[in-house]
Formats: sequence, C-alpha cells, structure tokens
Amino acid sequence: MEAKLLSQLQKIATDPAARGLRDDVALLGDLILTHDMLVEGVHFLPSDRAEDVAWKLIAVNLSDLASKGAVPVAMLLGAGLRRDAAWNAAFIRGIGIAAETFGIALIGGDTVAMPEGAPTSLGLTAIGRATGPVPSRAGAGAGDALYVAGIIGDAGLGLAMALGQCEIDAGIIAAYQRPIPLIETGRALSPIVTAMMDVSDGLLIDAQRMATASGTGVEIDLDMIPRSGAARMIGGDDRAAIIKSATAGDDYALLFTAARPLPPVPGRITRIGQMTRAGGLRIYDRDGDVPLPDTLGWLHD
Amino acid sequence: MEAKLLSQLQKIATDPAARGLRDDVALLGDLILTHDMLVEGVHFLPSDRAEDVAWKLIAVNLSDLASKGAVPVAMLLGAGLRRDAAWNAAFIRGIGIAAETFGIALIGGDTVAMPEGAPTSLGLTAIGRATGPVPSRAGAGAGDALYVAGIIGDAGLGLAMALGQCEIDAGIIAAYQRPIPLIETGRALSPIVTAMMDVSDGLLIDAQRMATASGTGVEIDLDMIPRSGAARMIGGDDRAAIIKSATAGDDYALLFTAARPLPPVPGRITRIGQMTRAGGLRIYDRDGDVPLPDTLGWLHD
Repeated sequence: MEAKLLSQLQKIATDPAARGLRDDVALLGDLILTHDMLVEGVHFLPSDRAEDVAWKLIAVNLSDLASKGAVPVAMLLGAGLRRDAAWNAAFIRGIGIAAETFGIALIGGDTVAMPEGAPTSLGLTAIGRATGPVPSRAGAGAGDALYVAGIIGDAGLGLAMALGQCEIDAGIIAAYQRPIPLIETGRALSPIVTAMMDVSDGLLIDAQRMATASGTGVEIDLDMIPRSGAARMIGGDDRAAIIKSATAGDDYALLFTAARPLPPVPGRITRIGQMTRAGGLRIYDRDGDVPLPDTLGWLHD
Repeated sequence: MEAKLLSQLQKIATDPAARGLRDDVALLGDLILTHDMLVEGVHFLPSDRAEDVAWKLIAVNLSDLASKGAVPVAMLLGAGLRRDAAWNAAFIRGIGIAAETFGIALIGGDTVAMPEGAPTSLGLTAIGRATGPVPSRAGAGAGDALYVAGIIGDAGLGLAMALGQCEIDAGIIAAYQRPIPLIETGRALSPIVTAMMDVSDGLLIDAQRMATASGTGVEIDLDMIPRSGAARMIGGDDRAAIIKSATAGDDYALLFTAARPLPPVPGRITRIGQMTRAGGLRIYDRDGDVPLPDTLGWLHD
C-alpha cells in the first residue's frame, strides 16, 4: 500500500479492531479478518492461468490469517472479471478447488464484468477464527531470536521463470503460482512467538518492518536464510543470489521472533538472526557485515 | 452478477452462512456480511466526484445491511485507485466522512495503484450486527402486502442528469450521487416483515426476484409507486415516466412484504401491491392491466 494513502487511512481507522492498519489483519471478537487484492499487471501476469490466479488470491489472504494463528472460516469474493467466459469459468473453478483444499467457505461477494480491455481486478475478504493468542508484528523484544518458517526465494525465481527470464523448473514455478499458506505452522507457533507476520514483499523489507513496529533493530545472517536446493542450483548460491532471494516477494513464509527455545513445530523452521537494541537492519554473512542493497523488497505503489 | 457465474458460484457456496448467495448477505453468528463492488465505467461515471464515489461505495453496502435489519459495525476496503494523487486523497477523505456519518469503523483492507488508464475498481466488505430476526428475500407468502420504504426513481433521473441528458436538479442528482441507506427503517421493519431486500437494480426486477425466491407471484399498482414531487415535475407523471422510474436502478429503497398491518415505522412507507398465488409479475394502473416493459431493471453483465 502506498505510504501516503496508508497514513491517510490510518487516521480514519481509529477503532481498536483495526490494529492501526499496521498488522495485516483486523480483530472482531474472536474473528480475524483480512482483505488483499490481486490486480492483473500488478500482482499477476496476464498470461497466468485462471486457476492459479484464483488459488493465489485465496492463498495470499490465508497467509495473513496463518501469521496470526487463525484457522480459515469463510470468505467473500469481489471479482472484476474478464469478457472471456472460459477464463472466468476456470477462475471460479479454481476458487472452488482452493476453497475445498484450505477448508474455507465461500459465503458471499460480487462479480462484475470489467470494461473491455481493463485488467482483471480481484479482492478477497478472508475470515478466520483465533485459536489462541493473536500475535502482532509489533511484539518483538531486543534479544529475541528471529526465525523463518518455510522457504525464501523460490517464488521470486518462479516469477522470473514465468516471465521467460530463465528456464522453467516445475517445482520452483509452483511456488510462484501456487503458494501454500502455512496455516498449521502458524497455529502451532502463535502461542510461542513474541511477533509474527508473513513474508509477502521480501524477507529484508518485512524484517525491517517488524523491527520498526516493535521498536527494535534486527540483524540477519544471510548464510542462514532457508533456500531450496533447486533455487541454489538454478539461481546460484553466492551472496548476490542470496540477496536476490531475500528481497524477492511472494514467498508467504512466516517470519517470527521468540524469546525462548522453540518446541517441535510442523514445517521447516530456521533461525536466521535476532532482534537487537540498536535500531535499523543489519545483514552479514561468514565474511562479516554486508552493505544493504538499494531495494529491500517489493514496494507496491 | 452474471447468471452463469452466479450459478457456478452457488455450487461452491454450500455453507449455510452463504444463504445460497441468494440474499445479498451472509450470516456468521450474529454478524451480517456483504461485499459489493463499484467499477468506474460500469457503476459510476469517470467524471463522478471522488467523495461521491466513496460515499456510494459505503452506502450501497450499508443498504444491503439495512435490508436485513442490521446495524453497521465495521468494513474492509479494497481500493484499486487512480494514478492521480488528488483524486485518491479525496476518495479516502470521502471514505472517512461516510464512515463517520454512518457510524461504521474502517478496520482493514488493501489499496493498489491500478495500471495506467485502467478503471478505478473498488470493493467493500461491510459487516453489521443483527438486532433481531434477519429477514430474507424468500419469506413472502401469497396474500402478503408489498411495500416500499423510501422513494423510487430519483436516482435513475439523477443519473440522466449526470450524463447531461436533462437539466440538473440538486435534490435529484444527490439521490444518484449520495444515496442514503435506510438503516433505522430496516431495523424497525425487520421484526415485522415476511421478506425484505433493497431495490438496487430497479423496482420491477427486484420485486420479481423477491416473488421468484418466495415461490409466489406479485402484482404492483403503478399509481402507488412513491415518486418525488421533483421527479414527477421534471420526469413527467404519465405511465411511461412511472415505468421509467420503476425500472431504473440505484434507488436503495427497501422492498418488503408483511402479513399484518404495519405499526408506525420511521421513513416514508407506501403500500404498492401484493404477493399472489399465481406466479409471475403483473403490473396495473387505474386503467387496468399494463403490459410488462421489455426491460424490468438494470442487468449488470
């Protein structure tokens, strides 16, 4: 979201349920609500398959719920569709498949035929139920360990493949087309963590946001960032490749902090750094401090 | 919503909370949820003022809540905005003003800068709380009286004014630009009615939909349809003008049925006909039966 608009919206969103629009979700009793949009040409490619776009629309919203330890309950769909009946039908089929896979009920919404030539414009309100404490991104303390649940960088590499920039690997491109929200992992982590959010815009920028919200600094060991074997092989394993992974968006991994050692939790959990007293983001690897790249992640405008 | 897409969505929306996607709203505990979209070039004119578009986005969703007797609680906004900072800022200001006017809290959402030249594409999830029984559109019985709360036809005439098709009247054009959801009226009516819905696509088409959903017929006395004095003066008061009013959209009046005489209720309430055993829609005036017009209302595709 564009910074000026966000700050204008935050002045309106004074209800405590809004969490100041700083936490990806809203709270209404024990319900957790989120609304994310996907717009053709901004968040997905015109050539992306309709079923994949439907999947992604649901997955990115459920990832927000996962980061709050919520289980999916229901969703309302706002779909500005194409003047292409086959594409639209495939999109709705994809909504049905993803809804069934993730156990979330479609309970309402609206569809509109967008004007000729206009981009497909999709919104989803996903509603979950809290299963325990609802972590915010602002709860980390200096000294807390910083972890990632899931894999970093596959989706960014998958986008490059979808754009024809490198040879296609089926496993990697699936991470871009069919992200899997870490619902069970988020649910198991929520009572343990001090802060949690999903990595949607890039690991470095999202870690920096968590630190800023928490009033701490953060340092990350680039060598510890969990990348897939395939991504290391295809994208390379040097510092530049690691930074590329750490600044690419669309991963939908979970980023969290904890003050105590973790009990066993489902999923791949990796400690990548820690929260610090000093402000700001610091990154390093086996050779010492690494200068911050110009771009820390995906900045939607 | 396009009929084929709706039927495909209804196959997915099997949860009872969805009310079969036949009732404009979903139910989750005592919460009532609705999601309506407004797209530039489909639901509003490129020249419409940003503040008015914001108002309308909230009003059309609150009208759905009003028709279920719900009081507004909270909303999530999905806004695909323009590459025009002044328009966007005015839109957000308008959201704040309407939210304050209607007492609904903005608790979350997403904003996206639409690609250059793409239409502004807006969605809103509005959440209300039921204050008593939640009427559906399917509960009318043969013999029930049919009523309208509010005015029919001003918004359609206001749209004609906005399009430059007739001279502007400030009161009438406001009905198009700034519809007022009948929240208090809906709340007072909800324990009394047998069926209720809002008139968004045109009185005749919406009355036919209520009858179909209820398994009844419906007959409407055209002479009884509540039109404003200004609309009668500007748009005319003959049969053609009345039918034009009764088939124009965007009124956001309430259409409801009752089996017993009404107690006093806030707002302008008019009895316009009744539900019948025989199927279908019949319209008549002081001269007897009137043939149905080719188009009963606004059909979005």
